Amino acid sequence: MPPRWLEAAAKPASAAHRNAAWRRQAALTKPAGALGDLESAAVQLAALQHRHRPRADRVHIAVFAADHGVAARGVSAWPQSVTVEMLRNFAAGGAAVSVIADALDATLEIIDAGTVAGTVAAGAGGTAIPGVTDARIAAGTRDFSVAEAMTAAQLQRALALGRDAVMRAPAADLFIGGDMGIANTTAAAAVACAILHRDPADLSGPGAGLDAAGVARKTAVIAAALDHHRGRLHDPRDALRCLGGFEIAALTGAFIAAAQNGIAVVVDGFIAGAAALAAARINPTVRPWLLFGHRSAEPGHACILDALEAKPLLDLGLRLGEGSGAAAAVCLLRLACRLHNDMATFVDAGVSGKHRG
Amino acid sequence: MPPRWLEAAAKPASAAHRNAAWRRQAALTKPAGALGDLESAAVQLAALQHRHRPRADRVHIAVFAADHGVAARGVSAWPQSVTVEMLRNFAAGGAAVSVIADALDATLEIIDAGTVAGTVAAGAGGTAIPGVTDARIAAGTRDFSVAEAMTAAQLQRALALGRDAVMRAPAADLFIGGDMGIANTTAAAAVACAILHRDPADLSGPGAGLDAAGVARKTAVIAAALDHHRGRLHDPRDALRCLGGFEIAALTGAFIAAAQNGIAVVVDGFIAGAAALAAARINPTVRPWLLFGHRSAEPGHACILDALEAKPLLDLGLRLGEGSGAAAAVCLLRLACRLHNDMATFVDAGVSGKHRG
Repeated sequence: MPPRWLEAAAKPASAAHRNAAWRRQAALTKPAGALGDLESAAVQLAALQHRHRPRADRVHIAVFAADHGVAARGVSAWPQSVTVEMLRNFAAGGAAVSVIADALDATLEIIDAGTVAGTVAAGAGGTAIPGVTDARIAAGTRDFSVAEAMTAAQLQRALALGRDAVMRAPAADLFIGGDMGIANTTAAAAVACAILHRDPADLSGPGAGLDAAGVARKTAVIAAALDHHRGRLHDPRDALRCLGGFEIAALTGAFIAAAQNGIAVVVDGFIAGAAALAAARINPTVRPWLLFGHRSAEPGHACILDALEAKPLLDLGLRLGEGSGAAAAVCLLRLACRLHNDMATFVDAGVSGKHRG
Repeated sequence: MPPRWLEAAAKPASAAHRNAAWRRQAALTKPAGALGDLESAAVQLAALQHRHRPRADRVHIAVFAADHGVAARGVSAWPQSVTVEMLRNFAAGGAAVSVIADALDATLEIIDAGTVAGTVAAGAGGTAIPGVTDARIAAGTRDFSVAEAMTAAQLQRALALGRDAVMRAPAADLFIGGDMGIANTTAAAAVACAILHRDPADLSGPGAGLDAAGVARKTAVIAAALDHHRGRLHDPRDALRCLGGFEIAALTGAFIAAAQNGIAVVVDGFIAGAAALAAARINPTVRPWLLFGHRSAEPGHACILDALEAKPLLDLGLRLGEGSGAAAAVCLLRLACRLHNDMATFVDAGVSGKHRG
């Protein structure tokens, strides 16, 4: 029995604010449309935020980390110990998302949703890594190539972890969800394949640095897993439960909760994209709340973006995760808001209008 | 006789700093290459600036405005009075580039390089618009469809205007040149056609809002002008003199001078792109100093970018000029520097390395 909160409608966008924002864009001292995607981003934020002056000032970033049983299948170029090592790095300020969060003056929280090593010393109680919230559901998921990745109860806990992170940032203008987890491009690809009925070869890519043989192995693992779970994958929740990861499900829950609570989301790359896909398929009212930060270098991201009819702001060949690409896009959303709010109109500035086509 | 200074070599980039910067990128806590174009931008700035910690803090923006005799041929959707009206708007803070400059805490100077209306009241002396530097070479160029746009002496003055703007910002980490001038996409397209030996249809586009009939008229005007000046267009300087504008030539001079003085340039869109093309063809040592802020929605920009083998940071459908797209890209260059300088290395953070391909 899936939790009811997932299906509650997102807050509606304001058509009145959207229309007023487009009228303002047309009145600003520039040819109509000349600021391209910065115009549409500002207008979308105005509509979502029900504000005539949209804002991207207060940014909350929640990074969820978890491990994946499928890592045992040789689908990552990195040892599983990196997941917790990077948690420490996030909290210490040395990771990419930490540096960008600092540059943006964003709030950053790091959540252990289910690492193998754990961040709390056994029996010690409390948090072993300062700055990391221990919310470990299990010591990683089970290997989804031979078992369901998580139980129904674990899925609900993971989804709720995401919702809880949003509830801790009720005043945020923008929410960003980041991910960390060795082998999580494999899980994300499998989830997206199940939801989109795509061939694993379309979604399987080098991730954090597989060579061609590694990508072929990863593709085969996903194909076998889809075969193993055939008949069980009825909806996006089944895909998350059978194939997903705790951090992916947490992101799904976070995106749904952000939309329900009227907070616009900037979606990061491949992992967050798969979570966004699941969120929008579980609850289609979420979709308008999802802005897309960047187009990842991970080839399968294009399938996810196409399915969501998403046009990301950046295309810089990023493929890091952590929320880093979404966070990088925030500087453009801030400029979009500044331009929308602070440019002069033709009337204010005494500038003549266009005289002909 | 072209001025000698144009041909002086640009400051060489530092191979030692470039190599050290790539080594640092490989040591930072992320898969190698995972920050995509942000990595290469930081490395390029390190090499150009001869710094281990590249910087994009101090940004100088010089916007050059001028009018174009060819506007009489109906090649713009806007009345020529807009050029000076927008100068006033730049100085008053209401234009897009003004708002972005303020957001970036960049220095912004506005230069009248040759408007028809002028910014100084006749006979009054001094500057009539506070914040606008009067450096008017003439009341616009001559109509290049029937005459040479400017004299050789005027071209030299325009190129020097650009150089002088750079000399006023010797401590800048980045230089941005912006443009304003009704009909200047026509002049820029003509200059690029002459340099690249391209068909006018490849470079002629809607500019600030022409309809299809307007674009056809503009294409025909450029084609007739190229025919009129045939035999006179031997090198990029001839293209600037016969077909260009004072603001376009000033940008060319500025880009050359910036490279000679060791200041990296962020090139804006179509107009600045044509000026960058002229600069790189006049003095090929300039090319490494040109970073490209964005891919313009103006269709002909692709020809210019291809010719320069340039890969812009942004692709947001911008088509405003003023330096606005280059200025918008600065926030990404700042993030690139922050990431390069402030991320932890694998060794510092105690994170395990990749174990296999």
